[in-house]
Amino acid sequence: MVPHARKGFFCAISFRGGLRRLQAEIIAVGTELLLGQIVNTNAQFLSRRLADAGIDVYFQTVVGDNLDRIVRAFEIAVGRADLVICSGGLGPTQDDVTKQALAKFTGRKLYHDGEALANIRRFFKERGTPMTDNNARQALALEGGDILPNDVGLAIGAAVMHNGKGFLLLPGPPAELRAMFTGYALPWIRRQWPEKEPLFTKLLKFGGIGESALEERLLDLIEAQEQVTIAPYAGEGEVTIRLAVKARSRREAEERMRAVEEEIRRRAGRYLFADRDIHLEDAVFELLKTKGRTVATAESCTGGLLAERLTSLPGSSAVFAGGVVTYTNAMKHRMLGIPMDLLEGPGAPGAVSPETARLMAERVLELTGSDYALSITGVAGPDPSEGKPVGLVHIGLAGRQTETDVFTIRAGSHRETVRRRAVRNALFRLWQKLAET
Amino acid sequence: MVPHARKGFFCAISFRGGLRRLQAEIIAVGTELLLGQIVNTNAQFLSRRLADAGIDVYFQTVVGDNLDRIVRAFEIAVGRADLVICSGGLGPTQDDVTKQALAKFTGRKLYHDGEALANIRRFFKERGTPMTDNNARQALALEGGDILPNDVGLAIGAAVMHNGKGFLLLPGPPAELRAMFTGYALPWIRRQWPEKEPLFTKLLKFGGIGESALEERLLDLIEAQEQVTIAPYAGEGEVTIRLAVKARSRREAEERMRAVEEEIRRRAGRYLFADRDIHLEDAVFELLKTKGRTVATAESCTGGLLAERLTSLPGSSAVFAGGVVTYTNAMKHRMLGIPMDLLEGPGAPGAVSPETARLMAERVLELTGSDYALSITGVAGPDPSEGKPVGLVHIGLAGRQTETDVFTIRAGSHRETVRRRAVRNALFRLWQKLAET
Repeated sequence: MVPHARKGFFCAISFRGGLRRLQAEIIAVGTELLLGQIVNTNAQFLSRRLADAGIDVYFQTVVGDNLDRIVRAFEIAVGRADLVICSGGLGPTQDDVTKQALAKFTGRKLYHDGEALANIRRFFKERGTPMTDNNARQALALEGGDILPNDVGLAIGAAVMHNGKGFLLLPGPPAELRAMFTGYALPWIRRQWPEKEPLFTKLLKFGGIGESALEERLLDLIEAQEQVTIAPYAGEGEVTIRLAVKARSRREAEERMRAVEEEIRRRAGRYLFADRDIHLEDAVFELLKTKGRTVATAESCTGGLLAERLTSLPGSSAVFAGGVVTYTNAMKHRMLGIPMDLLEGPGAPGAVSPETARLMAERVLELTGSDYALSITGVAGPDPSEGKPVGLVHIGLAGRQTETDVFTIRAGSHRETVRRRAVRNALFRLWQKLAET
Repeated sequence: MVPHARKGFFCAISFRGGLRRLQAEIIAVGTELLLGQIVNTNAQFLSRRLADAGIDVYFQTVVGDNLDRIVRAFEIAVGRADLVICSGGLGPTQDDVTKQALAKFTGRKLYHDGEALANIRRFFKERGTPMTDNNARQALALEGGDILPNDVGLAIGAAVMHNGKGFLLLPGPPAELRAMFTGYALPWIRRQWPEKEPLFTKLLKFGGIGESALEERLLDLIEAQEQVTIAPYAGEGEVTIRLAVKARSRREAEERMRAVEEEIRRRAGRYLFADRDIHLEDAVFELLKTKGRTVATAESCTGGLLAERLTSLPGSSAVFAGGVVTYTNAMKHRMLGIPMDLLEGPGAPGAVSPETARLMAERVLELTGSDYALSITGVAGPDPSEGKPVGLVHIGLAGRQTETDVFTIRAGSHRETVRRRAVRNALFRLWQKLAET
């Protein structure tokens, strides 16, 4: 076992008889990436998943839809990696030449896979659209290689071992790439490089606490980590702790992680909203649904973002009662009946105040007849308001059967950050309330 | 002049005595990219700006914070590019070694730049924080190179010509990178490779029309392009046409573009909302502000996204009156007073209907007292609703002094796409209304 620590991320897994970790290079193919028309989210997805699997990525490359340059990228990659993972260039057009490039590089022939071709024909038949010839390109496979099925789209992927190096060709559209990587490519890697004790991971998701505050609580655990590795990742208003351990089975892994997990829960359990890969809004959604409760929103500085997050999942009509966006004082008064002398004038608490947050939540609860109501009022910036600093946010949480709570936070200094953090924080307060009742 | 056509993007500019276009390679340095913790938006920004400047990018590379591997990336890059542009690794920690790697690769020494060092000292003094020694690293400069000032942060950048190849080292934080690239790095490139006639570009922004429909209208122009090049780019519910031409001055460029621009305006002018780089919501915001008008929103399937877009800019309280999110029928009835027999029951038009869209807009206009009101009701999916297909969206636009308009669109088949397109379309309808009154 060669432990390998890097910027807080640490996982120990041995490949090839315990000598070193497997090294992968990611090659994204697409001229639109080189022109900056799209951002390379596939490389991020693959990097994260490979890190999860204990596989090192030392280089990512982007190359255009050009056969010779893709071949040159392969030449460089095999000199510095065991495994080359490509995304893009599997589509039907003449531009799509990744399979052709790998065929040239490995000296292998391409052939049309019968099953894939039949699938494509069936697809066009069902749509009643004529299938143009170029679509057959999506059924191309490499001689002596394996086929990676595409459950989401038409272009099949390819996997091949050549001179001891692995090659995986995945489609460019993110939904197709993700499904193919998880369902077929990762299992293929595991078959090529079998391990007695693969790496198992578990995610703990925290809200309502910053990364550094959480890390501080866990610092001695993170520094003392041995068998079980502990790595924190920060998102916006969400922190993930990833536990990883080698084991022969998921059950054995759970056992090995138990003591560490319990200690983490003991120290920061009140901020833990899930022990799997789920976003906070989805956790709130599930909890509302399970408990048969609804929520309404009254937003000022977040301008509708909280409602938008609560309606992002299908089926939200069961849990989201409705919302108002009262950005101005006039509207807070007109739509929610907040007294003007609370909002303005000498000595008034103002629009950004615990009092206003409280009333906004209570009034929208009444207005919609929901079980819970969240309100957000704050200073998103860039300038201070009512003499209050950018980032100051008050969150109201009212319930039909509970006292109204008001939380005050400092949510950063950039407009977009303030808005997003305020929303995450509000969602977390609701999650806490739901979890405890 | 060697015209170079690639995927619809086409711009002609000559470097080095008209022989070929300048070729750049982008190297992003950062282990967090290889772990998938962040996505490589710097590469996208640089690629887009380089394309605008008529410079080809054939490869992007990502490498970790590791001196030897960065040097290897330099070795590969100089074999295939004239200009190597690096982002990241200029910070104060031991991890940040990009300058050290370039020093090693070029055999040049590093020294502390006096002015940069004084800046850093002043920064810490003003904050009242002690300056730790490692911060001096941010003032390091390369012997025989140029300094790229950092107007946003502390770490200075570097520019150096070495054996006929250009190297630019830019900081990793996006705001710092953008300011340094635009303000100092691009001018440096222009000085190293001076042109008699640089490339000037102009953006035309369209809404309410798809990329292919717009391209069809302009196809003969795009295909016949000679001096002035015409390239369409699609965004979500927004299409950009980029005009580019070589000229000695901006004024001469405008003159050369005039005929083409006029022809484009003649054919598609009614969808044109701006002739500069501005988002639709910002164009709407500006127009509302100039005309002293306000807008309110009533949203069903978009769940608050329209309000969120309209409040994304500071100062939106002057133009955004307020909004409601009435996701359910009960709320459409309760908050907006839409009659239940319009929404439900045998023979009723239903929630997703022109009638409901009309009433939602009119009622929220009344409720808020705004000058205009937009409503959106549709089927975001994934499943059909009321027997209506996913993607069907009705947009209502009411005004205090105008008849209410209702627009019906098909906005795609994925939930997120439907929501975003519906919002863009609604914004464009409002823009049109404002522009014509």
